[in-house]
Amino acid sequence: MNNNMNQEKIFLNKIGEVRCPMTEKFGLPRQSNLAEDLRGTVVFKKEYSVPEAFEGLADYEYIWIIWGFDGIGEKEGTFRPRVRPPRLGGNEFVGVFSTRSPFRPNHIGLSCVRLESVEITDKGTVLHISGLDMRDKTPVYDIKPYLPYVEAHPGARGGFTDKVGEHRLEVVFENTVSYLTEGDIKAITELISQDPRPAYQDDPQRIYGMKYGGVNVKFRVEGNKAIVVATEPCPG
Amino acid sequence: MNNNMNQEKIFLNKIGEVRCPMTEKFGLPRQSNLAEDLRGTVVFKKEYSVPEAFEGLADYEYIWIIWGFDGIGEKEGTFRPRVRPPRLGGNEFVGVFSTRSPFRPNHIGLSCVRLESVEITDKGTVLHISGLDMRDKTPVYDIKPYLPYVEAHPGARGGFTDKVGEHRLEVVFENTVSYLTEGDIKAITELISQDPRPAYQDDPQRIYGMKYGGVNVKFRVEGNKAIVVATEPCPG
Repeated sequence: MNNNMNQEKIFLNKIGEVRCPMTEKFGLPRQSNLAEDLRGTVVFKKEYSVPEAFEGLADYEYIWIIWGFDGIGEKEGTFRPRVRPPRLGGNEFVGVFSTRSPFRPNHIGLSCVRLESVEITDKGTVLHISGLDMRDKTPVYDIKPYLPYVEAHPGARGGFTDKVGEHRLEVVFENTVSYLTEGDIKAITELISQDPRPAYQDDPQRIYGMKYGGVNVKFRVEGNKAIVVATEPCPG
Repeated sequence: MNNNMNQEKIFLNKIGEVRCPMTEKFGLPRQSNLAEDLRGTVVFKKEYSVPEAFEGLADYEYIWIIWGFDGIGEKEGTFRPRVRPPRLGGNEFVGVFSTRSPFRPNHIGLSCVRLESVEITDKGTVLHISGLDMRDKTPVYDIKPYLPYVEAHPGARGGFTDKVGEHRLEVVFENTVSYLTEGDIKAITELISQDPRPAYQDDPQRIYGMKYGGVNVKFRVEGNKAIVVATEPCPG
């Protein structure tokens, strides 16, 4: 009998990974479902990518992804009882269990993403998803269907997230955009509209660079407007 | 740098456990939120139970619990690409990733439960929860707030769960009920109304026993009616 009762430690084996245009943390949405036009895939290791394991999944609109934090900062993954969520402006403390912060005891993330389609390829099953909030090559440990009959609570109290309005920037492209499709431009617009700047940075001259699908998207922010000043291929 | 990228295996450390009256698998709800009157607690190891870590949590109505499957059957926890969900009557196969079945690659469960209150005791923080679907002493690996603004999708397609009506039994108590509070009786009624019998068992004479808080609740099922014939203290 595989008895986990009282087990102090369990292993999770990576079953696959996320592929998406976001290769760095800067610009990533702070939750899933915030940037609906950010698209990506989940690809699986051979033993888990058999089509049978995904039978019926395409009939669900959303799925849960349980994934691993990916060393996005030296101190992340360390337990801190109190953290300062970016959504609160970065200067207010709340308990880590009241947030989705990575400074929690176990390095696992949970994201609800839209399942666009299930593709069977000769290399195995590929899940096409949108609204993700993890970067390229994030390890995946489980996929579960989203069950609206027990998991949709639209009227539920949402803690401090209820009190904070969604701050959005207007995004304009200053020049002709190179190397990008219309879908990419939609996704980039959504990502930058969420104001990826660290809290308290407000220098209208400062140029930020967000990596997206091999392109460095350079922008600056003036008041409520983000101006994309250049889109250049990343070196290397 | 704690780089999880491409990590084949990660550890999860137990941070606490669920305490609830259900000590065995038989009778457990098949998902969270199905038996709203089933109440329990989450208690934490000393290092994680500091009140600061839970600041702000009481302002959320629901929380996610990431927990470990607990060896409820010899073969569970083994990856099976196709499974037969009880909700489909136990005779129809679907892909394991289209279900919340324990026959998945990693032995972790995900439950959305109602947070009734957060209690600070001299032994640490205790979360009072309801609508749980795990048994007593289930190991807990993470607590995350439920975020209605990104996780409530009431109109979402729910796969095969959309097609199957919720089958409920009427529950009657034949005799005076001993050893049980009114709250216990409500919870037991809810649990038995979900028809915990294995698929295809339909013998009106057969007596089933569901353990609940040290009491063996004996019942039989005749058509759409469950008759509780005795409530006896469990030996030992």
